[in-house]
Amino acid sequence: MKQIRIGLLGMGNIGTGTYKTLEMNKALITANTGAELTIVKILEKDLARKRDVRVLPEQFTQEPSDILESPDIDVVIELLGGIEPATGFMLTAMNNGKHVVTANKAAVAANFDKLTNAARSNSVMFRFEASVGGGIPILTALTAPLLANEYEEIRGILNGTTNYILTQMEENGLSYDSALKAAQDRGFAEADPTADVEGHDVANKLSILISLAFGRRVPPENIPTEGITKLTMRDIETAAVDGGKIKLIASVKKRGNDIEYSIKPTFVPNDHPLAGVRNEFNAIFVKGNAVGELMFYGKGAGPLPTGSAVMGDVIEIARAVLR
Amino acid sequence: MKQIRIGLLGMGNIGTGTYKTLEMNKALITANTGAELTIVKILEKDLARKRDVRVLPEQFTQEPSDILESPDIDVVIELLGGIEPATGFMLTAMNNGKHVVTANKAAVAANFDKLTNAARSNSVMFRFEASVGGGIPILTALTAPLLANEYEEIRGILNGTTNYILTQMEENGLSYDSALKAAQDRGFAEADPTADVEGHDVANKLSILISLAFGRRVPPENIPTEGITKLTMRDIETAAVDGGKIKLIASVKKRGNDIEYSIKPTFVPNDHPLAGVRNEFNAIFVKGNAVGELMFYGKGAGPLPTGSAVMGDVIEIARAVLR
Repeated sequence: MKQIRIGLLGMGNIGTGTYKTLEMNKALITANTGAELTIVKILEKDLARKRDVRVLPEQFTQEPSDILESPDIDVVIELLGGIEPATGFMLTAMNNGKHVVTANKAAVAANFDKLTNAARSNSVMFRFEASVGGGIPILTALTAPLLANEYEEIRGILNGTTNYILTQMEENGLSYDSALKAAQDRGFAEADPTADVEGHDVANKLSILISLAFGRRVPPENIPTEGITKLTMRDIETAAVDGGKIKLIASVKKRGNDIEYSIKPTFVPNDHPLAGVRNEFNAIFVKGNAVGELMFYGKGAGPLPTGSAVMGDVIEIARAVLR
Repeated sequence: MKQIRIGLLGMGNIGTGTYKTLEMNKALITANTGAELTIVKILEKDLARKRDVRVLPEQFTQEPSDILESPDIDVVIELLGGIEPATGFMLTAMNNGKHVVTANKAAVAANFDKLTNAARSNSVMFRFEASVGGGIPILTALTAPLLANEYEEIRGILNGTTNYILTQMEENGLSYDSALKAAQDRGFAEADPTADVEGHDVANKLSILISLAFGRRVPPENIPTEGITKLTMRDIETAAVDGGKIKLIASVKKRGNDIEYSIKPTFVPNDHPLAGVRNEFNAIFVKGNAVGELMFYGKGAGPLPTGSAVMGDVIEIARAVLR
């Protein structure tokens, strides 16, 4: 049996979800790849945390080079979050001939060219399906089975926190503050929710979608971005009277030879498929000049959905390595 | 520039849509594959038909071997429909070392093992994304980015004709007969609608989904299948009162070590994402043990959406050949 040896950078929520996905579906994943996938080394300081997975103390290291420079690692999964040191670690891994998988939208959006060029020049694979839409396989769809299309438009609900807040305001009449608190209580929002509610998280994701679907680099900070903090119950009620809902929509649209993009609270009529996307779910609506309208719907965050996307990328790499 | 030479079997609606997709997006497809894709030969008797594409008389042949046995063909696209001679043609093509792409759900469902084994033993690729869900890339999703999941359930609206009829009955109060007539007038239903309205078309698609997601062969004729012909306005109205809609749902569900499957008109509550799938659209709802709930939505039929899926498969083959 061929072996694919994985080094994991970071074992917080998403790292644990990834580990758990592999542990839970190990036999299936082995059958699907024709190789045994094993997480042999984990860069993580917090050894005390309760993780509910079987992990041995000797799997942990606090020395990045034990993974990035080890000849015993084939694939590096980067789940540290943040632009640095994550980007530097990924570049080092690729320069050392390792394939890289990440869920890190901030690093991919900030360093798209640097990272994809490093993959090309080192003849390794660099995959980041989990960075947009969590478990929804939107990046694979855009970059493989839909490639016969010219993309005309992409519109997405790309942040579960804000969609949960808006759904609670609309369906249960909660104020913005109460809905935010409910999201925090259910683990859908951070203690400091700024990145979510101001749309910065979405900007990273839209930047990545624009790169893949339109071949342009638009840094997240150059995308006109308006969050949901100024929305009132009155806005939500007015939308309901007008037969629709307010959603935080990230959009990019072809306009002649150029593209237009923005992130802002937007009226969505009730008969549009994006209107039915409730609570913490995400959805991406795509229009191609051959396929017409498509929508992809699912959980945009969470340890196991994200773990599904990360391990999907690793399986894809394992199959390519074995070919 | 590398060349990928394609032979096309059949140039009816779907064949023309496939040809048009390639013609319309040729530059883009060349850029995305790194090769020039050309349909060099077309098996088709009807040369008189108005097709609105640029095709030369010398591209046509009426001799299958001009494609199936020609050393100048790399990929065969089969769009004849029906089990035979389509299956025999695909087997001959693969035995002659050609990759095969098809949209033919009847042939794939009837001969899944024979066709996939022929691909394996000849070391060629056999792809059939367009056979289920038209332009929706559901088969690619199930067999690549979601492979880290054990599938628990798949539920789909897999037939646009019946969904159009049900939507017209529900939204516009049409009787079954009037709604069927409206579907026929808009080109969404055949003159003889039996295969659609009795669920046989869906049975082929569900059989393929079961093969890919659960690794079992269930012939379409063994799937308990009930169409929509016995539905009345009263059923639709009762569903509305109960807060939902009647949809023709194909479903397969894991139950211990076994699976359960059926096709039948089913109550779908309004807050379920499948309830919002209107008119000729299709959608496939998937539940995986890591990713949770996903839904894929789009046009399940039509020349260009199907052409998008067929050409997506050809591009995937071209990229693999070039690697």
